[in-house]
Amino acid sequence: MSAHSREPSVAATALDHSVTRPFPGSRKVHVTGSRPDLRVPMRAIEQQDTPFQFGAEPNPSILVYDTSGPYTDCDHAVDLQQGLPALRAAWIEERGDTEPLPGPSSRFGRERAEDAAAANLRFPEQRAPRQARAGANVTQMHYARQGIVTPEMEFVAIRENQRRAEYAHSPELAQRHAGEGFGAAIPETVTPEFVRDEVARGRAIIPCNINHPESEPMAIGRNFLVKVNANMGTSAVTSSIAEEVEKLVWATRWGADTIMDLSTGRHIHETREWVIRNSPVPVGTVPIYQALEKVDGKAEALTWEIFRDTLIEQAEQGVDYFTIHAGVRLAFVPLTSRRVTGIVSRGGSIMAKWCLAHHEESFLYTHFEEICEIMKAYDVAFSLGDGLRPGSIADASDEAQMAELRTLGELAQTAWSHDVQCMIEGPGHVPMQRIRENMTEQLALCEEAPFYTLGPLTTDIAPGYDHITSAIGAAMIAWYGTAMLCYVTPKEHLGLPDKHDVREGMVTYRIAAHAADLAKGHPGAQLRDNALSKARFEFRWEDQFNLGLDPERAREFHDQTLPKEAHKVAHFCSMCGPHFCSMRISQEVREYAQQKGINDVHVAMEEGLREKAKEFRRSGSKVYREL
Amino acid sequence: MSAHSREPSVAATALDHSVTRPFPGSRKVHVTGSRPDLRVPMRAIEQQDTPFQFGAEPNPSILVYDTSGPYTDCDHAVDLQQGLPALRAAWIEERGDTEPLPGPSSRFGRERAEDAAAANLRFPEQRAPRQARAGANVTQMHYARQGIVTPEMEFVAIRENQRRAEYAHSPELAQRHAGEGFGAAIPETVTPEFVRDEVARGRAIIPCNINHPESEPMAIGRNFLVKVNANMGTSAVTSSIAEEVEKLVWATRWGADTIMDLSTGRHIHETREWVIRNSPVPVGTVPIYQALEKVDGKAEALTWEIFRDTLIEQAEQGVDYFTIHAGVRLAFVPLTSRRVTGIVSRGGSIMAKWCLAHHEESFLYTHFEEICEIMKAYDVAFSLGDGLRPGSIADASDEAQMAELRTLGELAQTAWSHDVQCMIEGPGHVPMQRIRENMTEQLALCEEAPFYTLGPLTTDIAPGYDHITSAIGAAMIAWYGTAMLCYVTPKEHLGLPDKHDVREGMVTYRIAAHAADLAKGHPGAQLRDNALSKARFEFRWEDQFNLGLDPERAREFHDQTLPKEAHKVAHFCSMCGPHFCSMRISQEVREYAQQKGINDVHVAMEEGLREKAKEFRRSGSKVYREL
Repeated sequence: MSAHSREPSVAATALDHSVTRPFPGSRKVHVTGSRPDLRVPMRAIEQQDTPFQFGAEPNPSILVYDTSGPYTDCDHAVDLQQGLPALRAAWIEERGDTEPLPGPSSRFGRERAEDAAAANLRFPEQRAPRQARAGANVTQMHYARQGIVTPEMEFVAIRENQRRAEYAHSPELAQRHAGEGFGAAIPETVTPEFVRDEVARGRAIIPCNINHPESEPMAIGRNFLVKVNANMGTSAVTSSIAEEVEKLVWATRWGADTIMDLSTGRHIHETREWVIRNSPVPVGTVPIYQALEKVDGKAEALTWEIFRDTLIEQAEQGVDYFTIHAGVRLAFVPLTSRRVTGIVSRGGSIMAKWCLAHHEESFLYTHFEEICEIMKAYDVAFSLGDGLRPGSIADASDEAQMAELRTLGELAQTAWSHDVQCMIEGPGHVPMQRIRENMTEQLALCEEAPFYTLGPLTTDIAPGYDHITSAIGAAMIAWYGTAMLCYVTPKEHLGLPDKHDVREGMVTYRIAAHAADLAKGHPGAQLRDNALSKARFEFRWEDQFNLGLDPERAREFHDQTLPKEAHKVAHFCSMCGPHFCSMRISQEVREYAQQKGINDVHVAMEEGLREKAKEFRRSGSKVYREL
Repeated sequence: MSAHSREPSVAATALDHSVTRPFPGSRKVHVTGSRPDLRVPMRAIEQQDTPFQFGAEPNPSILVYDTSGPYTDCDHAVDLQQGLPALRAAWIEERGDTEPLPGPSSRFGRERAEDAAAANLRFPEQRAPRQARAGANVTQMHYARQGIVTPEMEFVAIRENQRRAEYAHSPELAQRHAGEGFGAAIPETVTPEFVRDEVARGRAIIPCNINHPESEPMAIGRNFLVKVNANMGTSAVTSSIAEEVEKLVWATRWGADTIMDLSTGRHIHETREWVIRNSPVPVGTVPIYQALEKVDGKAEALTWEIFRDTLIEQAEQGVDYFTIHAGVRLAFVPLTSRRVTGIVSRGGSIMAKWCLAHHEESFLYTHFEEICEIMKAYDVAFSLGDGLRPGSIADASDEAQMAELRTLGELAQTAWSHDVQCMIEGPGHVPMQRIRENMTEQLALCEEAPFYTLGPLTTDIAPGYDHITSAIGAAMIAWYGTAMLCYVTPKEHLGLPDKHDVREGMVTYRIAAHAADLAKGHPGAQLRDNALSKARFEFRWEDQFNLGLDPERAREFHDQTLPKEAHKVAHFCSMCGPHFCSMRISQEVREYAQQKGINDVHVAMEEGLREKAKEFRRSGSKVYREL
């Protein structure tokens, strides 16, 4: 990401313990599907029993969606040089429509494979790249449209459900508000057939390149849980490839559903290989960045041939989705000339420069069908880039942005005509009152192809806090229908995110995604809120921490005020002290009502609560039994 | 706030420099109104000129709303023992409807004044408390309804406008999106008459107790800028009264429009005096907390007489608004018994306990008219407390909450029948899809009395990040019409906020408030966004930092990646390095279009841009002149 990158090395290959240690109170579980090698990972958060004075009932463990892969599995020995298990390899092979290649078919891939100087940087296990057999289309969309339910689709279905049916017997946990989905069609239970149908219609994608068999299948679509992407890339301060892998593991620990590798620099080919081989989540890239490096940063020197070779190079490494800015058409570029902040997308500005320099239509646009041919030979999904997204509130929803969006809608049709999976990228910077129209237009122009937005930031005035300015917009647009959010860290506009920033950005975006799932009425979403609220009310501090998105921080904050272990079983909050606690008082109100057998409270009020009030006073107004 | 508070002292009376130093690039200015002693403070942020290669134009200084009081005024010598200048004293006196009292008229106030043991804790300058003359009503609402425009109203008008008319000549700065106000009636220019009318109708309040002449008048109402309150209170770790004042100054530095002093403990009377005498913003309290202390924490021992004495005690110190939980009626208490989290409001649970113990209607409700009599003798505004607000997503918008809200609407009518100013408190925890109905119901039931909400939190699953879970809801509800937001810090539910948390919570809530102002289409809101975006595009790094809500953090984050001073005049972002910057490329696009005299870009496209493209390539594709 910087001009100052040092030479990478593979010196360090062990991950820091902080990155892989299981969350407190949690264990990895697997739910097996219709075949023994279809094992869907989840995280089970154990709960303590309700204290005896509140009823002494057992509390079930809560299953939550787990993006962290085998890294948090105690039964898995991490070996970065080995890479992750290729859990999808058999599924891909069984289909019989792909074949291993003798070696990389891109020119650049061959050059790198033969470069002796890169030998010590190379990932040791070089699996032969696979490609569709001649004439075959190996995309999940193609299978879906043939009526085939793939193991990937079944995996997604089990994963989306999170066994929530098991909690139906607990009204306290299962209760939920009616949602407002703005036309979303979220089913009570996700079946493999539902997944197939959504993928066939183009309303969801399962990014899973046949050359990334290590990835755990996941779906991006408005009728599934809202997903979050984390960006990362080589930076000046990084000297070891293991650190790149560590960034990836760290991001998935905090809930990244996909990661985008935006590295630049000399050794991105080798770094990418390490990242993909060790990534349990789909990996996206912006191939134009690497293509630009191949022409020494001169946008006008880019050619279709170089770009094409880059696509094949990356597809054979296993990149699951490509951001391609094919909507930045020549005629749209001048529409940005009166903007306050011009073109803020790197890919967009590269293509704008190319178009102006040649006064030609973008080669991404003119060669789009050929790109589709490549995508379907590996099952790489499109992420149609919003190269003309607004970079400021002032520029939001302008003609340049809307012209590009219309083009992206046309390109989605083209992709679908090839059965290639496709999502659409969105802004950016948008004031709240214009967020809804972004979603509405996207749904209409792109016929419900999944929307993948960056933020949007709802104001420009808070550099240093743009994870928050954008989380506000992200929660809203996800509620309206966005399928995946690209996280923003506190360093946005200012610098490169460090480990702290990645955690802060990821948790912030998990909040936005979850708030949206709740608002849409996702049938499983409120379960975790209910469990945490119940734990809070019953003063089960450890459970309250562990059920949260960041148990470690919750505990740390609590301990800053009340550090002793005894305080974590204390029946008072740290805010009010032991003698002045509203939660405790309302426990008393509840127990009072319950002990007196008041079921219909209105009736009871009339039937002599006054008498009971006297008893209550006589007993010293203490119905709360001492421990 | 804690059971462990140590003995306070006044030992330290100087404020830390970090709390009072002016923001970088900023200076305090005053705009004088119709009389020389009506001087409205604002903060002017100076800007650098646009670099010559982008046009070398001067950029105006940007005026922003300034809540920090004289503490950031270089011409003001801070002396906590002296307190702030009583800027409103003459205005109050001139009206001739108040008189100084010989001493405190509350029993408790007299006891404290005579307590020799408290002598060394007492604020040294004991100004005589004032009260309305017999029969007089000294509220701003009363004046407004008489057709009187007070200096306070004129002050508010000037303050709300922020001289924005001066920027009208700059289309780049003045451009803005059409807002969606959901029925708000925000004028292009706020006149003193408009303020009067809003206060007269009950749609806005100006909390300004006649005994707090130090406060700079401000308005809370949906047709004004969205305001933010910060809570604070004595904590276990605080040993000096100066530290309490420091918390207040710190919160207003980051934009607190009002503060609520929620202190508990032995010396709250003395602490409150120090806080009010040094507060440039209105101060709110929850008098039931202190009343409870007077009866040793036994809710059932509370009486109307003790509560009444507490109201008078605090009103004569200068508290500007009282949270009063008069909507927690006996009949509503059992409605909470099946909630997941019961009653989470401290004031609400105290009153619930009292009602159950006595089986009597709340004395706050039965004595409400007498409370109004006290309020109008000092101009204390009501903040009608939401004692039954939901404490979890599960409990959102339940019958208990709605029953209380209906009662608050009735009580607002009663307050208004006494010409007493009044706002309504709101939740709490609310999933996004139910936020709007909270606002709609409040507007309908309370006839547009200003709404003052805590958050709301849009999910329960992120302890440690509840400033963010709540800022999402806060931005939305403020957009829908909430007039003031109560901030939430990262420590919510876990512990006591420290200085870092207060800053984090305040900036987060200033973001929410501003995002709402933008969305409502407030005529001045987008100016600052536009100025910052222009600075960003022109690589004026210092201006970008200084125009932000937290210039110090923005600079610090930038410097973590690019520490050198030279980088702050660098024409590249820290993210992409000097050779790969989308902002720079789009500068080229813009200059290209401009240099070639392309005004109507569409026409130009047809008229031979192809020829110009050749030139562009011949010139090395570098239209960007080197520095």
